[in-house]
Formats: sequence, C-alpha cells, structure tokens
Amino acid sequence: MSIITTIRGGVCAPKGFSASGIHCGIRKNKTKKDLALIVSESRAAAAAVYTQNLVKGAPILVTKSHIADGYAQAIVCNSGNANTCNANGVEVAQEMCALAAAATGVAAEDVLVASTGVIGQPLDITPIAAAMPALAAALGDNSADAADAIMTTDLVAKEIAVCFTINGTECKMGGIAKGSGMIHPNMATMLVFITTDAAIPPALLQKALSEDVRDTFNMISIDGDTSTNDTVALLANGKAENPPVEEGTEAYVTFQEALKTVTTYLCREIAKDGEGATKLLTCKVTGAADAKTAKSAAKSVICSSLVKTAMFGADANWGRVLCALGYSGADLDVSKIDVAFASAAGTLTVCKNGAGTPFSEELAREVLTQGEVEILVELHSGDTTATAWGCDLTYDYVKINGDYRT
Amino acid sequence: MSIITTIRGGVCAPKGFSASGIHCGIRKNKTKKDLALIVSESRAAAAAVYTQNLVKGAPILVTKSHIADGYAQAIVCNSGNANTCNANGVEVAQEMCALAAAATGVAAEDVLVASTGVIGQPLDITPIAAAMPALAAALGDNSADAADAIMTTDLVAKEIAVCFTINGTECKMGGIAKGSGMIHPNMATMLVFITTDAAIPPALLQKALSEDVRDTFNMISIDGDTSTNDTVALLANGKAENPPVEEGTEAYVTFQEALKTVTTYLCREIAKDGEGATKLLTCKVTGAADAKTAKSAAKSVICSSLVKTAMFGADANWGRVLCALGYSGADLDVSKIDVAFASAAGTLTVCKNGAGTPFSEELAREVLTQGEVEILVELHSGDTTATAWGCDLTYDYVKINGDYRT
Repeated sequence: MSIITTIRGGVCAPKGFSASGIHCGIRKNKTKKDLALIVSESRAAAAAVYTQNLVKGAPILVTKSHIADGYAQAIVCNSGNANTCNANGVEVAQEMCALAAAATGVAAEDVLVASTGVIGQPLDITPIAAAMPALAAALGDNSADAADAIMTTDLVAKEIAVCFTINGTECKMGGIAKGSGMIHPNMATMLVFITTDAAIPPALLQKALSEDVRDTFNMISIDGDTSTNDTVALLANGKAENPPVEEGTEAYVTFQEALKTVTTYLCREIAKDGEGATKLLTCKVTGAADAKTAKSAAKSVICSSLVKTAMFGADANWGRVLCALGYSGADLDVSKIDVAFASAAGTLTVCKNGAGTPFSEELAREVLTQGEVEILVELHSGDTTATAWGCDLTYDYVKINGDYRT
Repeated sequence: MSIITTIRGGVCAPKGFSASGIHCGIRKNKTKKDLALIVSESRAAAAAVYTQNLVKGAPILVTKSHIADGYAQAIVCNSGNANTCNANGVEVAQEMCALAAAATGVAAEDVLVASTGVIGQPLDITPIAAAMPALAAALGDNSADAADAIMTTDLVAKEIAVCFTINGTECKMGGIAKGSGMIHPNMATMLVFITTDAAIPPALLQKALSEDVRDTFNMISIDGDTSTNDTVALLANGKAENPPVEEGTEAYVTFQEALKTVTTYLCREIAKDGEGATKLLTCKVTGAADAKTAKSAAKSVICSSLVKTAMFGADANWGRVLCALGYSGADLDVSKIDVAFASAAGTLTVCKNGAGTPFSEELAREVLTQGEVEILVELHSGDTTATAWGCDLTYDYVKINGDYRT
C-alpha cells in the first residue's frame, strides 16, 4: 500500500493545468456559473469512459472522436443544457471545441467537450461564443470555479486533489465532478474531469480508468436513471517528469491507488449530494461467492425506492433490504444472510440467517438519523466484497424533478 | 373476437363461490378488515403464478404445495403482515390453512394461503384462530368485503366480474386484487384472486394464466420493487357446466379474452392506485421489431423515476422518455423514435425522429394534468406493440414509505 495524501485543490493541483469557470448566459440566473474550461500546458495522454445509454449526448460523439488518438489538451463544459436529442447537436459541440481552441491556442481536435442539463432543447452557441475570450482570460488556479460551473441541481461543488510518489517522483492528481440526478451509471458516469501530472501512456491510462470505474462510478445510484451524457475524462500531462508508468509495476499500482482515492471520494460526494438527499447510504456486501454477486446485491439495495424511503424515515425496515437482495438477480442463499445498519451512532444487527433478530428501536433511530448510514450485508458464502453508494429518497427529490424544465 | 360483458360483482359472481372479509386484529385499526376467505362449493381446477424474488413469503411455499395436484377449493388471506422472513412462517401458513379447513369443511390441502404487509415480523396466529369461525360464518356474496380485507396501503378496493359464453353456455369470471407498493412484478404479481365457473382442466388453466400475466401483471410497475409475496391464483370450479374448455379451440380463445379483460382491468386499477399516485400512466410502444423490444421499452419508461416525477409535475419533459428508452436494454434506432403524450384533453407530439418538435406548453399542461396520461412511443422499426402501466412519483409515495412500519 502506497501513501496517498489528500491535499488542497482540484484539477489545478497537478503541474501544468489551469482552469476557469464563468457565467455566460445559458442559465438565466446570473449568479450561477455555466461554462468551464480546463487546459493543460501541453498535450496530455487522455482516457475517458462514457454512458452506455443508446441515447448519447452530441458532446460525447465529438469527445470520442477528439480523444481517439489517445491525447487531448483541454476540456470545455457547459451546464444548463445537455445538447442531447437536438438536430444540430454535433455541430454545436464542434463549435464549442473550435471556440475554446481559438481562445487558448490548443488544436480543436485536442479539446474534449461535455454538456449537462435539460435534454432536447437546442443549445444556443451565441452566449458561449461571446464568453469564450473571457473564459480563456480567466484561466488560472481556479478549479473551484470550474467545479461550480459544471453543477446542475448539485448543492455542493465536488473537488479533490491527492499527492503520491511514482519511482521517487512526487506526482499529483485532482478531480472535479457534478452529479445529483439521472445518476445510475452503467460502465461510465455523470461528468467527472480528472487531471494528473504523472507520465503514463494513453493505453495504460485508459486501462486504469476503465478498471477503476467498475468499482467506483458504476457502483453509485441516485435514481436508477442512466444519463445520456455521462462522461469521465482523465488527462495525464507528464509534467511531474516521473519515468512513465508501466503496466505490472509498483508504480502502476500506486497510480491505481491514487486514482481510486480520487474517484471514491467523488463517488461518495455525488451520492451524498443526490437530488433531495438528506443522507449518504453505503451498502457493503461481504462474504459473496464472486464479484458479480456482491455488486448486484449491493446495487440492488442502494437502488430500491423502498429502502431509500425507509432510510429517509429512519425506519429500520430490514425486510425491504432482504426483498431487494431477493430480486437482485444474484444467486443468494437467503437463509445465510445477516443484515446490520451502522453509522457514527453505532452498529445494529437486525437480521440473522435471513430472519429478524430483536433490536432496540431507540438505538435504530439513533443509528439511522445520522448523515451517513451503512447497510451491511453478510452473505456467508465466500470472501468477495463490494460497496455501492446512494442516498435516501425524499420529498425534495420529487419537488426538484416534478418541474425541472420550467 | 367474442363478447365479454362486464357485470357487477367480483369473485362471487361466478356460480358456486362465496367470500367474506372481517377484522380479526392483526391490524390495530379496528375499522380495517384484515382477513379474507374465498370458498368454492366444490374442488376447482387451480392455477397460480408467484413472485420470482428469491426471498419468498412462507404462504407461497404452502400454496405451491397445496396447488401441486392442480386443484383447490378455498383461499385464505390476511393483510397487515407478510409472514415472510420469519423462522416459524411455514408453520403459521399451514396453521392458517388448517383453521380455514376446519371452519369450512374443505380439506386443508385444498386451501391456498396468502399474506401481505410488513416483512420480518412474526405473524401471531391467535387472532386468526379466534376469528376463523366468524369469517366462515360470514361467507356469502361478499366479494367486496374480501377485497377490502386484502388491502394494505391501497386506497380503493379492486374488483371486477365479466360474463362470457363458452360453446353456448354462459360462464362468469371475477377477480379481486391488492396492489399499491412494492409493485414490480416479475413473472407474477401482487395478490390477485380470480374465480370462474367455467370448466377447464388444470393444465390448460395454468397455461392460460401464465400466458396472460406476461402481458398484464408483468407489465405494471409502481416502484421497481418486486415483492416477496406476489401471487395470482385462479380457481375454475366448472359450475357453469360448459363442456370443458380444450386447447386450440374457439372456447379457449374466449376464455383467454375473458381472463385478459379481468386482469387488464385489475392491472390498471393497481397502477392507478399506486402508493401516493395522482395519475395512471400508460406507456404504449408501437412499431417495435419484436415483443421483447416493445416490452423492455415500455417498462423502462414506466419505471423511470424522472419520467414519473415529470408526470407528477405535468412537465412535458420528453427528453426523460428518450433517456429511459436509451437505457432500456432494447436495441433501438434512436433517430426513428417519435414520442407523444395523450389524455382526455388531446394528443401532443413532442418528439419526431429522436429530436424535439415544437409544441404548445399550454396544451401540454392540459394534457398532462388529466388523471390518466398515455405516453405513446412509435419506434418505426416493425409492427409489434406493448403496453405497460404505472403511476407518477409523488410526495405522498415518500410519506407513505418513509415510516411504514410504525
């Protein structure tokens, strides 16, 4: 296990990255930033994963084409409009790249583009074009502004940076994310932009990212809806001047650990700030026969509307956890399952061998009224584990989504 | 197409069936009936389908064993407790059958049993044993009492009866159902009891039921949670004295149509009365290449929390419909998809060829504020259709489920 230290900052913590975020006018609220830019001093190895939704945002098509050679240098992203299901979506996404390129001196083919917001309303390029010079002029140590600008219904900006050592060279990695609603990633997720100054070849960078998301972003669910615009993009510009990371080395393991630290933090932040959420739910499945079983079981519990509403009401209704395990599709021996709820207030076993066990309703209430609640499921059928993250289902989720467009 | 006429009544409309429902004390609220009984004058051909949840209520195990010979004569059912995940569940379910048998003169092996309510709390047999003589004494033309007694969070009792002709003989069929929450049937559903006086052999009865549920109860979703206790049971006592229905005949087609009339009605009633629902949602998919595509697409739309909250808010956010189609797992050509919303107030096309088309927000609001809204999806890729039913997601769903146990 290498030492991964959390440090201040976000995507600008690694050497050679600058960022900015401003209000350009896609959103009516002038105090809400809606356009973000992240730029590397030089071309960077680039990797990305995307939504598996058949309906894909136009920005994803453009980003895929621009990242195809394994390199990129900038990311431009707007909130307030997903640029999805629009007849001219691809042209607008390409125009966003061209505008960012012109303002920064980066080649348009090295600009990645992302959009988030309402689906099916044409995205007007005019405010973006007008604001691009100001956005480029604002580039600096402004990760927080970029993190603000990509938010939609998020209440909290999400950023993290870590420091780690590759073959004696200090490297840094930072990330920002937006989440909140339409979050049920499938082999990819929401919008997450990660930067690092570590040197690592594009193919290995992609491998590290693709492996990582299986245990991180693909294990979150806010509402079961897989977005059309999910993108995780990772740029590695090599400015730390470490010997390039090679596969099968200790350096690669360290890189993976740093990446997991960043992505796990952002996962938890996204789940905790789910639309309307009052608490972060973590389902930890242990004792599974294999990884598929463990993951299916954990995700099924996290996705259950009935578990989510019970957690909102601080109701230790463990029968709903068993119900969700039962329809998860995982091959489980119900008679071996133990369930417990845990939080800062303590741990409470509520089910042993698939049947109820007496517990204090008073302690249950204390445990379940904390801001972070763990649902612990022990299958007693092997030694594989999995963790999934989500949040409770509340009145505010309904409120936020009952009239989102207007 | 045969003539299927809706008539008054429920499970007692067919000849030779009686029913009753009383308050026995499983529920604290003395005005809420909690124990139901349905009895046929003679042994009846019997068929059933059950939940595919691996966690199965104890009553399902007992019912499966009692129906194994293809015949049954009575159904006993309590609400207020699911008798699931309890160490002594099977014994209690068997005891319920024995008590019903003793009170009615039916053999215990011919009694089917069902329970619905909270999971994981031991079901006390005492109030059931005490009340069984009164329940049997109350047997009569009391389908409505039985329908009341099986309700949990349902607001409306659900019953229907129809009349049809088999080879010149008038036959009747009636059904009652409870739904409301934890409704996402998978090859079976909630609690539905159907009676008919038509004569039909057990194997063909099971075939008719199994085929029917694929297009009816398996196409409903209230909240995505597949219950542990879902059961549809169908008794055919032959008292109409028609020549027994045979496979491949016009009589079988008529029987299927009668069954579909009963089950489709109950499906719509269950969806309309989903926990917290303010409106019935029907998603009709047309132009699909095959049945699997059509059903996956329709169910995905009906299950989407974001579609459901948008419908609650009367927001014509068709992008969420496209998003749900995109992650449905169905193989779709997004660029061919048309979407419209329809209700008693009119029909509104909102998406053509996968992209938005201008519409009047005023008309949209009128269409979407009706009590029943259809989401029409035309795939333009074949001639297969499917219909799924659900409801909107509202504050009251959260309220009802935030504190269900207490």
